[in-house]
Amino acid sequence: MSDPVRIGLLGRGTVGDAFHELLGQRADAVAAAAGRRPEIAGVLRRSEGDFDAILEASEVVVELIGGTDPARDYVLRALRAGRHVVTANKQLIAQFGDELFDAAREAGVQLRFEAAVAGVVPVIRVIQESLAATEITKVFGIVNGTTNFILSEMASTGASYADALGRAQELGYAEADPSDDVGGADAAAKMAILARLAFGAPVALGDVSYEGITEIQPDDIAYAKELGLSLKLLGVAERRGGGISVRVFPCFLYPRHPLAPVEGPFNAVMVEAPTITEITMSGPGAGGVETASAVLGDLVSILSGQAPVHAARQSLEIVRDISSSFYLHLEVADRPGVLARIADVLGRNEVSVRSVVQRGLGDDARLVMVMHECPESWFFKALDELATLEFIRAQPRAIRVIEEEFV
Amino acid sequence: MSDPVRIGLLGRGTVGDAFHELLGQRADAVAAAAGRRPEIAGVLRRSEGDFDAILEASEVVVELIGGTDPARDYVLRALRAGRHVVTANKQLIAQFGDELFDAAREAGVQLRFEAAVAGVVPVIRVIQESLAATEITKVFGIVNGTTNFILSEMASTGASYADALGRAQELGYAEADPSDDVGGADAAAKMAILARLAFGAPVALGDVSYEGITEIQPDDIAYAKELGLSLKLLGVAERRGGGISVRVFPCFLYPRHPLAPVEGPFNAVMVEAPTITEITMSGPGAGGVETASAVLGDLVSILSGQAPVHAARQSLEIVRDISSSFYLHLEVADRPGVLARIADVLGRNEVSVRSVVQRGLGDDARLVMVMHECPESWFFKALDELATLEFIRAQPRAIRVIEEEFV
Repeated sequence: MSDPVRIGLLGRGTVGDAFHELLGQRADAVAAAAGRRPEIAGVLRRSEGDFDAILEASEVVVELIGGTDPARDYVLRALRAGRHVVTANKQLIAQFGDELFDAAREAGVQLRFEAAVAGVVPVIRVIQESLAATEITKVFGIVNGTTNFILSEMASTGASYADALGRAQELGYAEADPSDDVGGADAAAKMAILARLAFGAPVALGDVSYEGITEIQPDDIAYAKELGLSLKLLGVAERRGGGISVRVFPCFLYPRHPLAPVEGPFNAVMVEAPTITEITMSGPGAGGVETASAVLGDLVSILSGQAPVHAARQSLEIVRDISSSFYLHLEVADRPGVLARIADVLGRNEVSVRSVVQRGLGDDARLVMVMHECPESWFFKALDELATLEFIRAQPRAIRVIEEEFV
Repeated sequence: MSDPVRIGLLGRGTVGDAFHELLGQRADAVAAAAGRRPEIAGVLRRSEGDFDAILEASEVVVELIGGTDPARDYVLRALRAGRHVVTANKQLIAQFGDELFDAAREAGVQLRFEAAVAGVVPVIRVIQESLAATEITKVFGIVNGTTNFILSEMASTGASYADALGRAQELGYAEADPSDDVGGADAAAKMAILARLAFGAPVALGDVSYEGITEIQPDDIAYAKELGLSLKLLGVAERRGGGISVRVFPCFLYPRHPLAPVEGPFNAVMVEAPTITEITMSGPGAGGVETASAVLGDLVSILSGQAPVHAARQSLEIVRDISSSFYLHLEVADRPGVLARIADVLGRNEVSVRSVVQRGLGDDARLVMVMHECPESWFFKALDELATLEFIRAQPRAIRVIEEEFV
């Protein structure tokens, strides 16, 4: 057996603690798999430890601090000093990936980050290694467990968004300030990473358009349930024409869609290409020990010697106006001619109605419509016009619908 | 750019042809990902080509002949001559894995075989690399697309087994002689491979007990459908006590089970461990271009230089009497005392009934029962006794049931 491999651990939060413990328990297994036994050379906590000393003593640096400052500086310095790095830090990779990949390539060391997207679900490895030579056309899925838990809770109990969020916070699935999760920014950062790896093109955070789930009403979920639809916050990165589109948005799924049964804090990602049809991967998207397991897998791969390639091979245009199908919820005055006026606005914008259900609400009526797919700009133009009509009683609500039939 | 890497291709069936074409299309992508462009150095067909000349001219040998003779001899000679090998051959790995892994280790070359199990679904890579240091407790799933297609067809159309098999043959999902698939032997070979990798223990084909789907009646599926159950041919490899159990059997799944929605020729595999909860992966289990894509992924990994470890780290006892829950279908004479006699036989064998439904059939009655989990030997002893009772009108039918609730 060779000398032990010395690990510098940055950060002792939930994941850092779980990794420290797991590494101790699985040191023999790492040695059996990779030929060298791991050993903690030093730990940097907020209040103690000296980064330079830890760097000096380590062969591999594991960054579990989170955030970009000081993580970016530490990781860059580690790479430039010839240390392999494992990180679980999505913001770091999404915002500074190019700089870090360049630094790793120049120093001839590895930078691995499986845990940054979908926790222990091995989507990074599969895209970078199994599918390295595959022309991926689409990567999409549920990459935020907090919002998936909240939507599952709203669907199963009829709870309001606020109550479901409170429950998520009680159970530790949502943070005290949940805005990055519920607003879609967390999922957007993960989709920027997946898009970059899948398409080999630089994708910045600003290239990802995103919406969250804060405006979702229990009503919308209840109506959709009658139609067999389930609501998910989807991240979608896909080739469109000669460019790519990367978005995060709440979306209804038809019942046989492979992502429809993914509930609670689980994540799931699908990858499509003509030569593979589709691969679906799911599992826990967070959790201390699960995330630590993903970090451990990266460490074993580093010790085994493979270096994934991070070169951006091409620059692709970000396409923003793509086609979608929409669900539209309108509250209107219940009087003759209203439906005709609405149909006229939709028709003039070339938005075609697939189904409509009208229900009386005393003097008002509620219209729930599902549209055929059309360019989103057409639909949103129609929506803006509808919002100005004098018989509209509440802000119209629109949610995308995925209609594809699978298998 | 370095010199091209020379590939010797053995076999030009469906997968061989698809790989040849895919390699031509994706040569630039392979070069971008792995640093070297692949080039076919020679092709061995049944009727033409000289193995020694191809071996001499190649750095990597891709074996897509299938079967064990002459594939075993060719692969061994290639490994011993210092060539990396990629194969899609499950029988070769299941029957001669130890010999081949030893040869690869001694020669310091790689042997990769992602396509041998579940086609393009990256279960081998995830178990060997992402989870190399994880103590996996269970690997299970749907690893035969032919039987999954037949069972899906029976469930959706009410077709008999024979008719569904005929349909599978028409569509190319079943071979003219389907016995390896429908009898469970194909799934058993795949489970032997997965068990070996998951548990780091030698598992021979003879260690896997298996049943197929040839005895399944449309009745069983129809009754189960009323209960929301779906029938799958499952492969299960799990730790039991200090040993392991590896089995293939038809099994009912409750509706929220992650494998329940897997239909048609798709495969899906779940991996469980305390530190990862569970990971589920699904996708096409066969198909020329999909299988060729898995082979291409292995080739890229070889060119990138990582060598997975294949050492069997421990020897584990094969546990055969494990506990299961069963569905039991009985046709009996419809007269007083019959249910009491049946209940007595079950009770004496300590088999406890969870639910029972009785329906009249003229002079006879049909009893459909679901049992609580118990050691299988107890249940089968009760079943043998039941079969001898004078009021039993047809051979009792028993199918396992997975009761676990997920997420």
